[in-house]
This record gives sequence, C-alpha cells and structure tokens, in this order.
Amino acid sequence: VEHPAKATNRETREHNERLVLATVYDSGPVSRADVARLTGLTRTTVSDVVEGLLASSLCEEIGHGPSTGGKAPILVEIPSEARLLVGVDLGDQVFTAAIVNLRGAILQRVDAPSESTNGEGALRLAIDVMERALSLAGAPVLGVGIGAPGLVDASAGTVIQAVTRDWRMLPLGPIVADHFGLPVYVANDCQAAVLAEHVFGATRGPNLITVKAGQGIGAGLVINGETFPGDGYGAGEIGHTIVDPGGRMCRCARRGCLETVASMPAILVELSDRLGHPISQEEALRQFRLGEPDAHEVVLEAGRQLGAALGGLVGALHVRRFVLAGTMAAFGEPWLEAVAAAAADRALGALAADTTFELGRIDDVVVLGASALLMTRELGLSLHPFGSPRPPRTPVAVAVAGAAAASTPGLAARLGAAP
Amino acid sequence: VEHPAKATNRETREHNERLVLATVYDSGPVSRADVARLTGLTRTTVSDVVEGLLASSLCEEIGHGPSTGGKAPILVEIPSEARLLVGVDLGDQVFTAAIVNLRGAILQRVDAPSESTNGEGALRLAIDVMERALSLAGAPVLGVGIGAPGLVDASAGTVIQAVTRDWRMLPLGPIVADHFGLPVYVANDCQAAVLAEHVFGATRGPNLITVKAGQGIGAGLVINGETFPGDGYGAGEIGHTIVDPGGRMCRCARRGCLETVASMPAILVELSDRLGHPISQEEALRQFRLGEPDAHEVVLEAGRQLGAALGGLVGALHVRRFVLAGTMAAFGEPWLEAVAAAAADRALGALAADTTFELGRIDDVVVLGASALLMTRELGLSLHPFGSPRPPRTPVAVAVAGAAAASTPGLAARLGAAP
Repeated sequence: VEHPAKATNRETREHNERLVLATVYDSGPVSRADVARLTGLTRTTVSDVVEGLLASSLCEEIGHGPSTGGKAPILVEIPSEARLLVGVDLGDQVFTAAIVNLRGAILQRVDAPSESTNGEGALRLAIDVMERALSLAGAPVLGVGIGAPGLVDASAGTVIQAVTRDWRMLPLGPIVADHFGLPVYVANDCQAAVLAEHVFGATRGPNLITVKAGQGIGAGLVINGETFPGDGYGAGEIGHTIVDPGGRMCRCARRGCLETVASMPAILVELSDRLGHPISQEEALRQFRLGEPDAHEVVLEAGRQLGAALGGLVGALHVRRFVLAGTMAAFGEPWLEAVAAAAADRALGALAADTTFELGRIDDVVVLGASALLMTRELGLSLHPFGSPRPPRTPVAVAVAGAAAASTPGLAARLGAAP
Repeated sequence: VEHPAKATNRETREHNERLVLATVYDSGPVSRADVARLTGLTRTTVSDVVEGLLASSLCEEIGHGPSTGGKAPILVEIPSEARLLVGVDLGDQVFTAAIVNLRGAILQRVDAPSESTNGEGALRLAIDVMERALSLAGAPVLGVGIGAPGLVDASAGTVIQAVTRDWRMLPLGPIVADHFGLPVYVANDCQAAVLAEHVFGATRGPNLITVKAGQGIGAGLVINGETFPGDGYGAGEIGHTIVDPGGRMCRCARRGCLETVASMPAILVELSDRLGHPISQEEALRQFRLGEPDAHEVVLEAGRQLGAALGGLVGALHVRRFVLAGTMAAFGEPWLEAVAAAAADRALGALAADTTFELGRIDDVVVLGASALLMTRELGLSLHPFGSPRPPRTPVAVAVAGAAAASTPGLAARLGAAP
C-alpha cells in the first residue's frame, strides 16, 4: 500500500522556486516585493530564490521601477531567450527540429523529408535534424522535446510502437539524451499538439481536446491541466475506431475505421474515384476553395463523419473546448462547421450547446507542443496557467530520460550556473 | 493569473494528519513506531497526531503488540464504527438511505418507493429517508453522502438539472446540511457508482470507468484517482448520444439515443413488440435465464449496442477497466460478453486487447459510492489507495456544503472531541 509522501523541505523549496519563477515569467518585469505579494511568500524567501535564478541567468535585473515613496525597486524578468528549447516533430512527411524561445516563438528551424525512411534510418535522420538545429542555437539550451508518432511511454521516453516508422520499444528519449547530454522529453504527437494549445494557445480552463486530422486521425487530451495518456499511452487513438463496419479497407487491415472516412487520404481516394484520376492534396484544396461540387461534397462528408465520432466524446467527457488541427484543418470554416454540426446532432442537446469546436491557430503545433512539454516539465512554466479548482501540489522531480537530470537538486541548482 | 498556493504550516499539518490516519486505517492495528516507519514522519509528529485522533475517538488503543526487545508497543487502530456514514441513493424507483461503516458495510437501511414523486415532494421524501436512517445510527455520524440523478455540481452540492425529478438548480447539499447540521456531499449517481468501485471495490490503478445501464444509461469516470465531472458536470452522459439516427423515439424527445437500444426499458419495449403483450423486468429476466430465444436475442443485441458505443471510449481514453452495473447487469455473463465483444470489434486491436469489461460486484453501488465520497472527502480514506504515478499533493480543505465544516481547522479538531 502506498501513501502520499510527506512534504519534505526540499519539495517545499522546489515548490517555492517554481512559484517565484512562474510569477516572474507571468508578471515580469516585477519587483521582489511584488513577487512576495503575489505569491504570499516572505520577502526573504523570494530574495533567496531570485538570487539563485540570477546566478543561473534564468532571471535578469533590468533596472528600477517607479518609487512608491522609498528607494525605487529593482525589477527582474525572465528574458525570452534565457534558455532555448529544441522542439521536434517527427511527422509522417517531414521531420522538423526548431529552436524555440520561452514565449513559444520559433527562432530557427530545420526540416527534412521523412516519408521514405524508417527503422534505424529514421532514428538517424531524427538525430541529424536535432543536431543541425542545435548548431543554430545562439543561447544555452534547456533540453529537447519530441513529438513522436505512435504509442509513446512519456515517462520513460520510449516509443512503444510506431507502425509508420517500424519502431518498437525504441528508447528514443534516453538515446537522444545520451547523444546530446541534455534532458529529453518525448510524447505522442497528438498529445504534444494538445499541450501546445494548452500552454501557448489562447486557452483557459483545465480541460481541452485537440484533434489532429491529416494523414491519420488522433486526439490529445488535457484533463485537469495535464495531458492524459490513458492507462497504456493509447488515449486519443480515435483514428482506428470503426465507424462504418464493412466499409473501406484501412491501413490497419480492418474495414471502416474513422481514418477511412475522415482523413486526408480518405478524401483523396474518394475524390480520385469520382474524378477517375489521382488527385493531390494541393489540388483537392484548390478545388474545394473554388467551390467545385465534388470536392465540397467529399470534404464536408468527411467533416460530418469526424463530427459524428466526436459527438460520442462530447457526452462522455463534457470537455467544452475542441481544437481541430492537422492538414484537414486547411479546409477551414466550412469543414469545421460540418464537424461541429454533426457532433451536436449526436450529443445530448445541453452538452452540445455547451461545447465549442474551433480551428487551431497555432502553426507547427507539434513542434511547439514538444517545446511546451520540455518547458513545463523542466521549469513548470506555462503561458496560460489556469485557475484549477483542485488542491495545489507540491512539485516533485519528474522522471527525465538521460543522465543529465537523473538527480533532483533544487531547480536553480539543476539549471547550473550562468553559462 | 493564479498560481499554486504556497504550502503553509496548516496544510502540512493536515497533510500529515491524513497520512497518519490513512496508514492506521490500512495497516492497523499498528504501533506508533511502525506508523513513523511507514510514513517517514518523525515519531514526535506521529505521536502528536495520534493523540488528536484518540481524543476525537477516531482512533483507539487496543492493547500491546509483541515486544521486539524493549517495552511492548501499544497498538492503535481505527474501529470500523468510529464514525458512521450516511449513504443515500436517490434512485429512479427507490430512494435508499443507509448507515454504512468505515469499511463499506451497510448496517442499516431505509428504502422508500420514489417512482411517482417529484419536485418538493421528492425532496421531502429524500430528507425523510435520511432522517429515518439517522435515527438508526448507533454511533457518531461523520456526515451524509448523496448520489443524485441528473447534472450535479458536486463542489456546491447543487442538482443543476434532474428531469426525472423536475429539479432545477436545487441546492440539495446545503438544504440537507442545514437540516441535519452535518457535512453533506452530493454527486451524480453514476459518479458515485464509479467511486464505490474505486474506493470499496477490488480496483487497482488510477483510472476506471463504471457504466450504469438500467432505466437509463450513464457512466462515471475516475481519472488519475479522482472522479472526473467534465467542464460542466456532464461527463459520463452517454445515454443520449445518438447511435441509431432515425431510430426509436427517446424520452429526451430525439430519436435513436443509446438508451433507446440498450437500456432496460428498450429491451422491454422490444420484447413486448415481439410477444404482442407487455412484459415486466422480472419476466424478461426469467425468460432470459430460461434461454427463451426472443429474450436472448433482444438482450444480447442490447449488449452489442452498448459495447459498440463503449468501443469509442476504449480508443479515446485507453482506460483499461470498465465495470458494468445497473439492472441490465442482472443479465450476467452472456450480456457482458456481448458488450465486450462489440467494444473490441470497434476499437483498435491493441487497445481492445488491453481493456477488460467486468460486472460490478458491489450491491447498492450508489449508496456505497455516496458513502465513499463522504469518507474520502472528510477523512481522505480509501480501502484501496492506488500507487499514483503523480506527485503527492498537499491536501487542502475541500468545499463542504453547510456550516458544520465551513472553517478549516486541522482534521482532528474538525472531527471534534470524543462524543
């Protein structure tokens, strides 16, 4: 029988460090006195923590604020590039590694076509794009966040299974951590996508579902402010739920999966059938925008099929906000409306009325989600912290792949001295 | 922008009190020295906390354990009836209030037929059964837990909407708390059901879905060890997801809801149609057990319909354990197998293979779930604490309806002196 561990002094210190860091990140430039006021911590504690953050160059003094009678207070802030994040998207068609700042801006990016590579070759290509991105970083790097396809054990950094890459039980996180000597976090790409919306998006509230519809279809869930991987990392794997028994053959060797009726390949197959010749994604998009009837009909039907599947989730989870991303989102508002209408048709009226579907407004959603994973796990930072109704937590060390973060000293100590 | 609150001394004290209480509950009879060893707390802290628990009679000294060289240690335990719980099920057909001990045993129960009552009358009947149950309690009562139909705001204790009772924005928790001067917790009945399985059942693991199929169909979700109500308390409302567009008319005034194909009323309607005369629930059960072909066919088809709907959840959430309860569960293993097979047919193979469906083994699941709600919220106790992969929390006061628990002194203080 396990019990909650007692709160130790170390945990309390790290909790307070994260609290100060998050406050300076959100409210900076800010004085130490204001940080004390905002956090409820004593001025001595705040000063101690800020000293540590200054010593590690994570925080900077940037001059004096207005005096409120006495001495003008010194203001501190967290420079956007105090640390850089490497965000990686191991996409179906392209591998991308980008240098991202602490506010979610992409500073540099390296892309490599990835469609024809798998196994060891795909792993080498992934490390290669990261290496090239790292060589472009102009400031100290916090670590690497990776959005990977397939079932991913995010606590160990292992890709359990990624059929498209022929990866099985690949310890991707530890391999990359060993290679670069940096902390590395790995998550499923759809779970990274939902984290991008949660951390860098305009989101409020503790719950969010992001649906990525493109080559495949998958969802990512944020539940109570945390990505929810399920009991075995498969949460969000909605693409291979059968919605049309006896329908078209799927790449998973069964018939009528959601992907066979609502993904980009599905509409290209259907359009090709109608037109009597193959059609590219670009051409389908062009025809849709021109209002070509076949393209319109096929795309909206795909939207309705996706919406009908999501309708089941509306009732089961009552999560108010669904964000749609992936290449299908390029079909824009008409497609979105088809999705939303079909979902509403399927769900209990009161719940449907309470649920919004919107298009993701974040480009490079997996790159940014992987960066967000790294930033939240290493620093506890989020651009949009939400007011959780739940008890505050004493943060403890998160399992990190690789030796670089194997021990768990205080946050400032772990970040090292100013480089 | 909100931040996690700093850990205060009061929170640390309450955290440690709950830790000691849970340890004595799980491991008792146990010595103070063993509690210190099991929790990692100092012996002084443990002794202080135990003194408080003894003073409130929540804990008892029950004699000496074996000596390990020196003085034989005094053993302490939490008597099963140190406090009694009032668990209430405001069911569709019967209102039940029961006196339940701290190990989930029902000591006394009061039932009242409820089918024909609603509005104020239903509220009066609910209070009446509680009053009668309370009069039977032979030991101090900790409070009241209520499983109510409809959308329930569990943090405020308000029934937002319960169509069957004609209740809208009914502050049930505060009303009952004022009436009895006790802490009162209210949850949706399906959410109570899942808590019963989680707290008193044979469950392990942080995630669990309970599906209650009877007059209606609803689910309760435990996610990361906590019931998940969704953004607006509607999570688990799967009964009115449309699975058969254009199908039978539902009591919600739409066609083809899951309830129209998989609930008890649905099979009674279908069987009546086939037989040419009305049939009761008892008669349907009897015919099914006798192997009567129509009953068999209709019941198994209802199981398949439920399974197909649950298949979508298997992929979306990857929660390994589904427990099926409600009157439909009386159809036993053949029905369960139909549910499980249909769910597996719909879900991705790897996820389906990883998911189990089982019949709930807890009678009075809502009564016990409501008791569990009270016990976990007030005392932080659970018969089956699970090894959560997440950080331990510093418990803080939970919002409680009613004046009795409006302030938040330490746990022992809140429980009061020995009665």
